[in-house]
Amino acid sequence: MTVNRVQVVENILNANDQVAQLNRDVLNQAGVFSINLMASPGAGKTSFILRTIQAMQPDVKLGVVEGDTAPVTIDADKINAAGMPAVQINTGGECHLDAVMLRAGLQQLPLSDIDLLIVENVGNLICPAAFNLGTHINLLIASIPEGDDKPYKYPNIYRGLDVLVINKTDLLPYIDFRMDYFQQGVEILNPGLTTFTVSCKTGEGLDAWADWLRSRLAAHAQK
Amino acid sequence: MTVNRVQVVENILNANDQVAQLNRDVLNQAGVFSINLMASPGAGKTSFILRTIQAMQPDVKLGVVEGDTAPVTIDADKINAAGMPAVQINTGGECHLDAVMLRAGLQQLPLSDIDLLIVENVGNLICPAAFNLGTHINLLIASIPEGDDKPYKYPNIYRGLDVLVINKTDLLPYIDFRMDYFQQGVEILNPGLTTFTVSCKTGEGLDAWADWLRSRLAAHAQK
Repeated sequence: MTVNRVQVVENILNANDQVAQLNRDVLNQAGVFSINLMASPGAGKTSFILRTIQAMQPDVKLGVVEGDTAPVTIDADKINAAGMPAVQINTGGECHLDAVMLRAGLQQLPLSDIDLLIVENVGNLICPAAFNLGTHINLLIASIPEGDDKPYKYPNIYRGLDVLVINKTDLLPYIDFRMDYFQQGVEILNPGLTTFTVSCKTGEGLDAWADWLRSRLAAHAQK
Repeated sequence: MTVNRVQVVENILNANDQVAQLNRDVLNQAGVFSINLMASPGAGKTSFILRTIQAMQPDVKLGVVEGDTAPVTIDADKINAAGMPAVQINTGGECHLDAVMLRAGLQQLPLSDIDLLIVENVGNLICPAAFNLGTHINLLIASIPEGDDKPYKYPNIYRGLDVLVINKTDLLPYIDFRMDYFQQGVEILNPGLTTFTVSCKTGEGLDAWADWLRSRLAAHAQK
């Protein structure tokens, strides 16, 4: 039997897709709408989740799965402090969440009491793009300090997105960031992508995101 | 024959280490001092290289290997525009450089005309930490907007460092960044780590880095 690296990787991805479908079924049966939240390290994933919890209270019940490469509960602690159930998954050094890890996380959450599940992936613009988790939408947070060339340099993650959030607009006065150049790069990879421009620090732009999310939640509940 | 994933990964890493040793031999024979430059996307790797080129001119001859996950030459073009030879390696979607990729890059550079080689790794805080390239030192650029919790969340990359550069200090007035908390996290993982605090935008702090680098180059040339 000859096993090469490409074949092993393909087998892993096929097995992952099967578990992703199971996750989707579990989420649909429980009536949970779910988001795979991806970003670079430090783009503001946890701040965005906290702002979303705030905007959805009190009528939308949230749950969060936190993916971390190390056994630290910094992010999960912040979510719990905001009164929402959070489960931490330590990937053991792996650079992404996969469907099996999320399956383990789902089993620890009270899904029947949750309307919206946010899965905070590991901070990385490359590996998470290759692993379908079974969630309903893929959302990327890009942040102004990362620079305006990121869609050109990390195209795969942009191609697979349903929603893009551009965060840290409060830093625009201090950074050379050509919004036109950035958005042109996104448009080539993912034409017409739903995009929100926000500052999780000041709250700017988050109302539009919350309105969009509420409409998606309503549509999901009617299914 | 039973092949599991862990075994395949171990075989890949062992083979990588053998090629890394070859790279080190090639670099030593040519009298080249080399840096594996790692960081998150957008931490300022290319700006740091451009500042280093500027500080080392005219007596130190630089060469650069640019690792990118996509076939874009944005960074390599900037280095070439600064008058230095740059080779771009497209990892084909892979999340890190490995020793085999660097070997291919070295073969395209005029090593006998180079004193200092900077290898710009793929923007990622996880995967590059696992792959020895054969370079002389591992350097990480952390940037202020990424947040002060990164050593706690990405410990593996901090453990393997020889030098840490904290970049974008010009943004400190606009961001909640607890320098003590950050440096405490680094100290636990890598006690006494050589650290430079700089702004590649304003130039602040880069003289100390340039002095340190010149002394390392001089020590390497005497070997």
